[in-house]
Amino acid sequence: MPFNLKIYLEKKRRIVDEALREVFRNPGDCPSALWESMKYSVFAGGKRLRPILCLAAADAVGLPQRAALRIACSLELIHTYSLIHDDLPSLDDDDYRRGRRTNHKVFGDAMAILAGDGLQTLAFEWVSNPSVYSAQNRKNVPRVVNELAHYAGYQGMVGGQVDDVLSERKKPSLSKVLSIHRRKTGALLLSSVKLPALLAGASPRKVSALTEYGRSAGLAFQIVDDILNETGESKKLGKTAGSDRSRGKMTYPSVIGLEKSKREVERLTRRAVQALESFNAKADPLKAIARYMAERTN
Amino acid sequence: MPFNLKIYLEKKRRIVDEALREVFRNPGDCPSALWESMKYSVFAGGKRLRPILCLAAADAVGLPQRAALRIACSLELIHTYSLIHDDLPSLDDDDYRRGRRTNHKVFGDAMAILAGDGLQTLAFEWVSNPSVYSAQNRKNVPRVVNELAHYAGYQGMVGGQVDDVLSERKKPSLSKVLSIHRRKTGALLLSSVKLPALLAGASPRKVSALTEYGRSAGLAFQIVDDILNETGESKKLGKTAGSDRSRGKMTYPSVIGLEKSKREVERLTRRAVQALESFNAKADPLKAIARYMAERTN
Repeated sequence: MPFNLKIYLEKKRRIVDEALREVFRNPGDCPSALWESMKYSVFAGGKRLRPILCLAAADAVGLPQRAALRIACSLELIHTYSLIHDDLPSLDDDDYRRGRRTNHKVFGDAMAILAGDGLQTLAFEWVSNPSVYSAQNRKNVPRVVNELAHYAGYQGMVGGQVDDVLSERKKPSLSKVLSIHRRKTGALLLSSVKLPALLAGASPRKVSALTEYGRSAGLAFQIVDDILNETGESKKLGKTAGSDRSRGKMTYPSVIGLEKSKREVERLTRRAVQALESFNAKADPLKAIARYMAERTN
Repeated sequence: MPFNLKIYLEKKRRIVDEALREVFRNPGDCPSALWESMKYSVFAGGKRLRPILCLAAADAVGLPQRAALRIACSLELIHTYSLIHDDLPSLDDDDYRRGRRTNHKVFGDAMAILAGDGLQTLAFEWVSNPSVYSAQNRKNVPRVVNELAHYAGYQGMVGGQVDDVLSERKKPSLSKVLSIHRRKTGALLLSSVKLPALLAGASPRKVSALTEYGRSAGLAFQIVDDILNETGESKKLGKTAGSDRSRGKMTYPSVIGLEKSKREVERLTRRAVQALESFNAKADPLKAIARYMAERTN
């Protein structure tokens, strides 16, 4: 039977959603307003791209799914917190995301800030729980936490967000937009495939190959986002098409034009697929996901 | 020579400041505006109470200082990020802290939110670096990260902050103010002495004793804060005296009165000191710090 990506993505998405429901099974000593606010954004219709990449990479390196899901959920929690904070009035001031009201529009600015904070902490709490790992995986947990924090932090995702905010209405340059993309979205996408390899104790060669895959596919993903914002329909995107341009955001199309941006997506996608050449058939889903990320229309 | 607490605190504070300067030695790939904003608040004249408690607890359980300083700095980074976010206009809306302008007054709301986010991530990056620990300590790192995240998160510090915000102008009750204090400040103070014991692999009995110390001394610390806000001078406190009352914040004096609050501080401090009965002279600084925290005037 030929590999069917649509069925594969749907199956993994269900597994991820189930695992995220497990994260939010018990509020413990959490104030209910905070709990509701955190949950609202985690279950707001995300594509679960980072967790799915994580599970696919785990399959490629032989990491048990139970262990991989800890990283997968942490990545989604971090991604979600960053969206909540990015949408705040003092940042992007967005009222809608994926067709639903943003967190601060529903719960207020104070709760949105604190829900984001709580989701970040929860990500590190979830991934570091020693009792869920085998002895062999457990010894790699400090490095996994360390690199997750690195890619999510001031040199990674947070740094990229700062540069994105500061670059609005500034003179665009390819090096600047590349630097923003590599960090704001690229760093977490890269870590989605690198971290499971680190947790599994995969060979440095395999870790490098997955890192290259994540770097190329992650950048391609963001360029496609730029292109869709320029050419897509608001309804399909779940956000306002053309909003990057009206905000003076630095994007690939604004710097090198639409056609060149599309060719860059193709080049990066080929590179991502080639990086996995030495893997066996277990890496086929990752290759298919890279192509899907390049060809998506929302 | 008798033990001199003032000299002890000053010595430890210097060690902590030196270690924090090491954290901020190299911005790497961090946007300079973000780096400056993060640094501004970390070096804004804090007392370094959490890091000093951590070093004192490390001495009591025989954890090497190099390892303890990783936890100590992480605690201070988390404490700092929480202050930056708490001061934001949508939360406490404070313009001054410790006599200096708050982060968002200097760098703007967007950068203050992101600096807080970056400091939280940096805390987890700093404490999880596997290369700084001995093999024996390293195997306890996942649990240390896990508990740090627990105490800093939705059931701990962030949860306490939410309850604090939601309780303003509400009918005060002792159980509510106790719950806020235990989490908003208590959880991180408790972890300051518990985490070094976990990293050292101390016996469960010692971990429990230090946890009890941290719980009692941490609550006493916050009640003293409430009392000083009611009775102290703005200049000495570095913030507006009486601000809790004018905001309708729930405090110990507002619920049980000043005198009873002072007696509660004494009771908790005795309890903290007694918890360390079975420790040898290496725990004397912790005992002295508990008394100092109860008797401080700013």
